[in-house]
Amino acid sequence: MKIIVLAPADDVAILTERAAAGDRPLGSGLPLSAAVPAGHKIARHAIECGSPVHKFGQVIGYATEDIPVGAHVHSHNLAFGAHAGDAEAGADLDQARKAVPELQPRTFEGYRRADGRVGTRNMIALLATVNCSATVIRRAADEIERRGLLDAYPNVDGIVALTHGTGCGMAADGPGWSNLQRVLWGHATHPNVGAAIFVGLGCEVMQIARMKSMFGAAGEERFHGLTIQESGGTRATVERIVARVTEMLPEIDTARRSPSPLSDLVVALQCGGSDGYSGITANPALGVASDYLVGHGATVILSETPEIYGAEQLLLRRAADAKVAAALTERIRWWEDYTSSHGGSMDNNPSPGNKAGGLTTILEKSLGAVAKGGATPLNEVVGYGERPTARGLVFMDTPGYDPVSVTGQVAGGAQIVVFTTGRGSAFGSKPAPTLKLATNDRLYNTMIEDMDLNCGDVISAGVSLADKGAEILDLIVATASGKHSKSERLGLGDNEFVPWQIGAVM
Amino acid sequence: MKIIVLAPADDVAILTERAAAGDRPLGSGLPLSAAVPAGHKIARHAIECGSPVHKFGQVIGYATEDIPVGAHVHSHNLAFGAHAGDAEAGADLDQARKAVPELQPRTFEGYRRADGRVGTRNMIALLATVNCSATVIRRAADEIERRGLLDAYPNVDGIVALTHGTGCGMAADGPGWSNLQRVLWGHATHPNVGAAIFVGLGCEVMQIARMKSMFGAAGEERFHGLTIQESGGTRATVERIVARVTEMLPEIDTARRSPSPLSDLVVALQCGGSDGYSGITANPALGVASDYLVGHGATVILSETPEIYGAEQLLLRRAADAKVAAALTERIRWWEDYTSSHGGSMDNNPSPGNKAGGLTTILEKSLGAVAKGGATPLNEVVGYGERPTARGLVFMDTPGYDPVSVTGQVAGGAQIVVFTTGRGSAFGSKPAPTLKLATNDRLYNTMIEDMDLNCGDVISAGVSLADKGAEILDLIVATASGKHSKSERLGLGDNEFVPWQIGAVM
Ligand SMILES: [Ca+2]
Ligand SMILES: [Ca+2]
Ligand SMILES: [Ca+2]
Ligand SMILES: [Ca+2]
Ligand SMILES: [Ca+2]
Repeated sequence: MKIIVLAPADDVAILTERAAAGDRPLGSGLPLSAAVPAGHKIARHAIECGSPVHKFGQVIGYATEDIPVGAHVHSHNLAFGAHAGDAEAGADLDQARKAVPELQPRTFEGYRRADGRVGTRNMIALLATVNCSATVIRRAADEIERRGLLDAYPNVDGIVALTHGTGCGMAADGPGWSNLQRVLWGHATHPNVGAAIFVGLGCEVMQIARMKSMFGAAGEERFHGLTIQESGGTRATVERIVARVTEMLPEIDTARRSPSPLSDLVVALQCGGSDGYSGITANPALGVASDYLVGHGATVILSETPEIYGAEQLLLRRAADAKVAAALTERIRWWEDYTSSHGGSMDNNPSPGNKAGGLTTILEKSLGAVAKGGATPLNEVVGYGERPTARGLVFMDTPGYDPVSVTGQVAGGAQIVVFTTGRGSAFGSKPAPTLKLATNDRLYNTMIEDMDLNCGDVISAGVSLADKGAEILDLIVATASGKHSKSERLGLGDNEFVPWQIGAVM
Repeated sequence: MKIIVLAPADDVAILTERAAAGDRPLGSGLPLSAAVPAGHKIARHAIECGSPVHKFGQVIGYATEDIPVGAHVHSHNLAFGAHAGDAEAGADLDQARKAVPELQPRTFEGYRRADGRVGTRNMIALLATVNCSATVIRRAADEIERRGLLDAYPNVDGIVALTHGTGCGMAADGPGWSNLQRVLWGHATHPNVGAAIFVGLGCEVMQIARMKSMFGAAGEERFHGLTIQESGGTRATVERIVARVTEMLPEIDTARRSPSPLSDLVVALQCGGSDGYSGITANPALGVASDYLVGHGATVILSETPEIYGAEQLLLRRAADAKVAAALTERIRWWEDYTSSHGGSMDNNPSPGNKAGGLTTILEKSLGAVAKGGATPLNEVVGYGERPTARGLVFMDTPGYDPVSVTGQVAGGAQIVVFTTGRGSAFGSKPAPTLKLATNDRLYNTMIEDMDLNCGDVISAGVSLADKGAEILDLIVATASGKHSKSERLGLGDNEFVPWQIGAVM
């Protein structure tokens, strides 16, 4: 019977394999009354009703009944308690600065753009300003592939049609409108995009001309726009898009990869379908890779506000200054309002799948989620889809829901996404590719065509987190230089573009 | 210079063609200081600041400055006023009953299903419970078409992949969750669907098993479900879906069309991209067709609550009983709360395109929108995606935004959608087809591949509304019997499935 204990003072041990009814995984205590899946927790000693329960050396909740030694600890006897609340912003900053490693300079092969940013891909983006133009851009992208129009252009990495369900029937200002506008503009001007065409119906709330004037001339030479109403309908618009792309291809194809320092990388961190292993294998290994990236001067974007909720004090203690700490606290309060005004609550999380995987409380999940960000200072907090100005570790406010979160991160300029999963995910993104890391061997083996790297061997083969972090960094550098991720090979990433919708649908 | 006056007591006339600066369209008054587009309004006499302004014989707003005779009347001098508020529910019910025509029985050729409903198409539906399975179902549908698997089955009308951006990162109860659940179930069990496969990732909030248990065994024999996490990843899931469809095809192909009375039809009414002609050509002509359908015992679904806002008294006066009237009033109040709680307002409408087309106030737009529903009694009010139980004219509460509104109407069992447009639209829907009616000749001619019928000739050639209504009914019957709509020929309808998202994204 294998168990692991994550920190010496923990009240629970983690099962690394399934225990049957009647088993005594600790070798002592009462036999289990029912089977307990791998990744779940058992009590290392008797815990009194009302006592805090520790995992990762941190409080993950409070016992809701007396728990005997050896018993399964989960939703039936453990619940979320109050936040610590006494965070001392910046208290761990010195220690966090020491966590930035000094490293030899290293490069990747990227496409340097006129604005100084560097792409890891050279793609054509078709963007719908409204759902009403979703079909025409998909049809145009299909036609371009069907006719083999890209075949003669080896430096063009593909075409993506970015569609969504909104863009009209919405307020023409406020957070929902700003989110959509930033996401569309951020994708059109993304360093992985060689040229972009916006396509509207013509009468929608999200007007191409207004967006263009709001953002000024930036990237204008790569920016084109047309509408269905002006173009004469579905088929005529598809043909106009195909003709426009055909015209632009020779110019887009002139881009070439060249060596660029890793400080030009913006890497987004993501998790989805977490399990009991996420916080002990893939997330901390990705945290090591994050620290390496920060050591190289890159930007690393941690996100998913609802999934760090409860563990925000860990980030506040590493905040580079009071402004950064205040910005994070403001976002946390905004989320409490946002969810409660919709009759919800921040601890609606974890999801049914998370619970099946052994995560009992949002606090427990959050401690594991924050581990992705490593140990370096938190240098900036940005809004959804905003471009970070700082290097090092930054936080972008996004939902936890994978497609919505990644869409904001890519809009903010991330050229690569690293995604940990325990239950399994078929996620992919464009124009920035996603790498998927499995938290356990079983998942890696059953979804091997979707998983880019196995972190399960941290438990099954005793691979150190430092070695696994270095392996993740190597994979990031290779992928940034053009190696295809598994999700790229499978062609994922068009359907997973989902801007964060806030506000009434009218 | 052509003008039309819609009701004798109206304060404004409508330009049927563009007037240049210096023109006097009425033949009297001051010359126009600037050009005025067709469809816009001019003052028939001097209007004092603060006075009500009438069009369709109804108040559409109040003058915000003194308006001289012959002047352009629009947003600069006309604004929305308070609601009438003194509606007498049921006051026009006798008159509405007389508006139901007595007609000779008529049939269409439909697919009769086990539950007694009749399909106008016989399709296979793949449904994603969550965005995480969007790509696999689209890929499976593409594969099935690419391999020509449907070619041997002439009675199968096609396959549709219904994807969306939600299904996780959401509350597991409340209106957003109920909407999604009703929409998914309503499409899976739709009479136009011969067989349905739900595909999930596995760990999402919108669990297949929970949905199945909530709705009971209804339609179970046509219902299948699988997840990516159980199937071994993207490619394996695509293959499983393709294999499942291949297995089911011979059985689905046994369906045959047979004569069914028009009382088996459920027809949804929709408008999008309205202009100054919508309320005077296509909408009242569709209103005539609605009355014919009601005369045949069919169900007609009027929707788009924000677009009838301000004209709800017209419906309340035709309410079949106090319960129906109370349900409509309750929905209007709900919308006032919904929009104001998001910092918006119900008169955010009309959209930029509506305004360019000459519609100044929501009231003016609403009076034109309600005309689609004809003149018969309002027999029922249902929630978004709910199945009406009454025949005749019913109201379904939906947003006005086309893809979201139609998705609810089709979920409620509509087998055909009739959509009027003045600015132009490339909308389509599956599994129930959409017919698009142009409000003016110019649009019909410029988007002829998208428009199923021209209603512009009501003005340009003096065609009567009664004749145009009969022409619309003939087209509905032909389309219900298998004739393809323009949007079906263009293959629209997969990307336009957009469930009404309410609540926080987490
Ligand atoms: Ca999308
Ligand atoms: Ca998640
Ligand atoms: Ca996530
Ligand atoms: Ca969709
Ligand atoms: Ca509409």
